[in-house]
Amino acid sequence: MTAATIKAGWIAVDWGTSNMRAWAMSASGTVLAEAVSDQGMAKLDRDGFEPALLSVIGDWIDGPTDVVACGMVGSRQGWVEAPYQAVPCPTLPSGFVQAPTTHPDLTVHVIPGIMQKDPADVMRGEETQITGFLARNPNWDGVICLPGTHTKWVHVSADEVVSFQTFMTGELFDTIATHTVLRHSIAADGWDQAAFADGLDTAMARPERLAARLFSLRAKGLLHGQSGQTARAHLSGLLIGAELAGAKPYWLGQQIAVIGDHSLSSHYVAALAAQSVPATQVNATSVTLAGLATAYQRLKG
Amino acid sequence: MTAATIKAGWIAVDWGTSNMRAWAMSASGTVLAEAVSDQGMAKLDRDGFEPALLSVIGDWIDGPTDVVACGMVGSRQGWVEAPYQAVPCPTLPSGFVQAPTTHPDLTVHVIPGIMQKDPADVMRGEETQITGFLARNPNWDGVICLPGTHTKWVHVSADEVVSFQTFMTGELFDTIATHTVLRHSIAADGWDQAAFADGLDTAMARPERLAARLFSLRAKGLLHGQSGQTARAHLSGLLIGAELAGAKPYWLGQQIAVIGDHSLSSHYVAALAAQSVPATQVNATSVTLAGLATAYQRLKG
Repeated sequence: MTAATIKAGWIAVDWGTSNMRAWAMSASGTVLAEAVSDQGMAKLDRDGFEPALLSVIGDWIDGPTDVVACGMVGSRQGWVEAPYQAVPCPTLPSGFVQAPTTHPDLTVHVIPGIMQKDPADVMRGEETQITGFLARNPNWDGVICLPGTHTKWVHVSADEVVSFQTFMTGELFDTIATHTVLRHSIAADGWDQAAFADGLDTAMARPERLAARLFSLRAKGLLHGQSGQTARAHLSGLLIGAELAGAKPYWLGQQIAVIGDHSLSSHYVAALAAQSVPATQVNATSVTLAGLATAYQRLKG
Repeated sequence: MTAATIKAGWIAVDWGTSNMRAWAMSASGTVLAEAVSDQGMAKLDRDGFEPALLSVIGDWIDGPTDVVACGMVGSRQGWVEAPYQAVPCPTLPSGFVQAPTTHPDLTVHVIPGIMQKDPADVMRGEETQITGFLARNPNWDGVICLPGTHTKWVHVSADEVVSFQTFMTGELFDTIATHTVLRHSIAADGWDQAAFADGLDTAMARPERLAARLFSLRAKGLLHGQSGQTARAHLSGLLIGAELAGAKPYWLGQQIAVIGDHSLSSHYVAALAAQSVPATQVNATSVTLAGLATAYQRLKG
């Protein structure tokens, strides 16, 4: 590819712990090109960010170009620290921070995350997705659930983040399934919807018995030959059920949007439906891009 | 050491997943010698158990010798499977199984574990400790808590195991502290009793918020500079508190004995004391040996 066969009006970047994703955008907001990289924040030291970025977007630059980035790139271990804004605050915090660069045509704006003092909590990247969702749904009030490694429940009102709470559910699932005695009992993939629903019900009714239910998965494999797929879905149901029990003050009586990976989000939507709570499932990539576009408009506005 | 400077009347063995411990016993029940090995069940295939045992106890054998063994040595992945007995059953199950041996003077008797069909649960090794505790405390009825990687709560009445429940608390603690994002926030050792007590209270009052409280430990490190020792003790309090909430049907209104590692058992005793539940702390090694001696007496009786 020769340089600047695509010339970006600006460049949108979602830079997380494990991966980086970039889009070449036209001035009018059309996606001209898209690229992904496995050079996540965790793999880079401070001097590694600019080369990692240029290896992905270098060909899109022809003259001075703004990059707008969200995610862990703005953490203390990232390219440049973009200090958290405290709730309550606008869903898109002000105070974008410029990352240090050497390329003469490159200006990188990093979007800050949001913090909450008590209960102590932090987010980076989700604020941009929420902003994108609100750009698509003006005047929306309610609760946004963002399932993932660290699932967030975010109360949004009048375009502000009022409060939020993070549950380590996704990371607990991965860690328990791969690093405990349950690794012998849980399949790497596969699903059993009835076992998921049963886990949900069990954990919502008795969330305090979680650590006992976990060991039961092992014992059921030993004594009753329970399949690894059933165990996998049941574990997911137990952990999401415990989370729903804990997050009840967030979702009870609210309108809910679920933003995240399609498959995981579907499980949350199903779990909420089992509580007679309707939830709208939202494409994560689409709102990330919309949020980055809102941030770019603010820079230019 | 020349052969049989110590001649054992019989040999007691506690053979777990990670380690093996053996005692040369006189016919009258005195400990003549003691040895430990890191050749736990998980490191051995079926043919490896006899050599691993003889490398530890070979010098104690002079003529036909009985070995009585408890623990994971009797599991499906062990030396020989000693099938579980189902509750309700005597604390010392019948049906000891002989392991296959080639040494002409060696006879190895493996004590079976105990299972419960619903809720599905299993134990191996704890039945021997409980038996030893009852040998020391005849006619004792109540609940025995055995803290560890997989903590057991066992209802004992009239020398039988009535029911039991296993909580994966210890393994969750280790896994969360070393394999999740909290590894950045939790010290490898150290303690903060106030943080432990606060974690206990928090989790007992709101066990369903566990996954959120875990992420708060990370956020408190980032935002408030919480120390790794405080985070460590708070995590322990959260997990033990959630366990106590789940195990309440076991400990409420019962007399309690706690058998296990001294430091971990002390935390459980303190946690129960905070609920105004007195508990007796019991030396684990001592009751293991007493239980193996009871098993040997039955073989000879």
